[in-house]
Amino acid sequence: MTQIRLVGFDADDTLWRSQDYFDEAQLEFERIVGRYVDLADVRVLDALYAVETANIAVFGYGVKGMALSMIESATQITGGRIAALDLHRIVELAKGLLRHPVELLPGIRSAVEAIAARYEVVLITKGDLFHQEAKVRDSGMSDLFRRIEIVSEKDTPTYARVLSEFEAGPTEFLMIGNSLRSDIAPVLALGGWGVHMPYRTTWAHETQATIDVGFERMCVVETPEALPAAVGMLVARAGGAG
Amino acid sequence: MTQIRLVGFDADDTLWRSQDYFDEAQLEFERIVGRYVDLADVRVLDALYAVETANIAVFGYGVKGMALSMIESATQITGGRIAALDLHRIVELAKGLLRHPVELLPGIRSAVEAIAARYEVVLITKGDLFHQEAKVRDSGMSDLFRRIEIVSEKDTPTYARVLSEFEAGPTEFLMIGNSLRSDIAPVLALGGWGVHMPYRTTWAHETQATIDVGFERMCVVETPEALPAAVGMLVARAGGAG
Repeated sequence: MTQIRLVGFDADDTLWRSQDYFDEAQLEFERIVGRYVDLADVRVLDALYAVETANIAVFGYGVKGMALSMIESATQITGGRIAALDLHRIVELAKGLLRHPVELLPGIRSAVEAIAARYEVVLITKGDLFHQEAKVRDSGMSDLFRRIEIVSEKDTPTYARVLSEFEAGPTEFLMIGNSLRSDIAPVLALGGWGVHMPYRTTWAHETQATIDVGFERMCVVETPEALPAAVGMLVARAGGAG
Repeated sequence: MTQIRLVGFDADDTLWRSQDYFDEAQLEFERIVGRYVDLADVRVLDALYAVETANIAVFGYGVKGMALSMIESATQITGGRIAALDLHRIVELAKGLLRHPVELLPGIRSAVEAIAARYEVVLITKGDLFHQEAKVRDSGMSDLFRRIEIVSEKDTPTYARVLSEFEAGPTEFLMIGNSLRSDIAPVLALGGWGVHMPYRTTWAHETQATIDVGFERMCVVETPEALPAAVGMLVARAGGAG
């Protein structure tokens, strides 16, 4: 009989707001490009998403890659007519995102504390190393986590490697996060457990996952307040003293 | 009496070429901007370095931050006159750097193999997570290293954290790298050991370190072939069977 003893938390849109700022940056991108093309004719954000998707293999995730894709996309959409000062506003947009203060989701701190009082907790987050480290530092929550792992992709091999570094078996591990694709599906695939806490907005790229939400090794909660009980329920289902 | 049992390798310009490509990218940047200003009047690379230095606190290290700083600097130097298509060439420059095949330094593979046959070896490299992982993968050398740590800054607290994760004391650790500032000085400060292998070109930012090279816990080599003997010499000096 296995027992869940290690709980992982995602960071962006699980501990703190993130996608909201990207959504705002996209609207600002649309306003910048909208001075050169008629937004009624050109699906600017679709064009940007196509460039971002094509560039992920070379840029990876994060604000800096997004900004470079925006500059590429703006140049394409405007046929090279966009002014340098407007492209430079995209650089400033990136700086604004990178410097944005961390805003914790309401109730998350006490939820993590309650879970950390009973289990070992770790943070597993994807994206730009430098930016993620800055957010962890600014969040004031780093002391709650035994380990903080910043990875370039949250897929099954990555979770397997990280769990091996933590010296934990997949069946002893439960992951909490807002993305089915990055936080839940790969962990379930390894034999682990998941609590899905959707955020109200999700990057299109992260919605590409299909899971049977009736799967017995996962559950869904709507707010951080519900997390400790959800973890306890799955721990009990796993056979431990939840 | 301590014994050196863990050997760390830096990656860029220690295992493979890196700064050469950045130097080439800077010359290309100068050519692009040189169509708008007289290079005899404007110290383009000094201006770029000033922007890069100011932006490091928000972008960190790596190609993507460099490209965003180049776009900012080109806009400033040209007073906003630079064409979007020329700024987009900087995005393409970044993609070229990120996709560049890994070129191992001559002799490094057998040097790492010889050292890995006697000691545990780990890779500790700084910069963009996604790009560094891609280079480690492409190098074909990842199997030689027990652990691969990609960090955002190579300073004393970072080495202390990484060594604690490796469960090794600083006096048991020897670091090999091309940068006195990032590879040698912080490790010596912790009480560890260092082999400095300078590369023929070094980013100005990395030259900001002063070390007494007569320091008994370090030595300097010129080529990878000299690394195994240098490690053995320091191991012997530490009191082990070098």
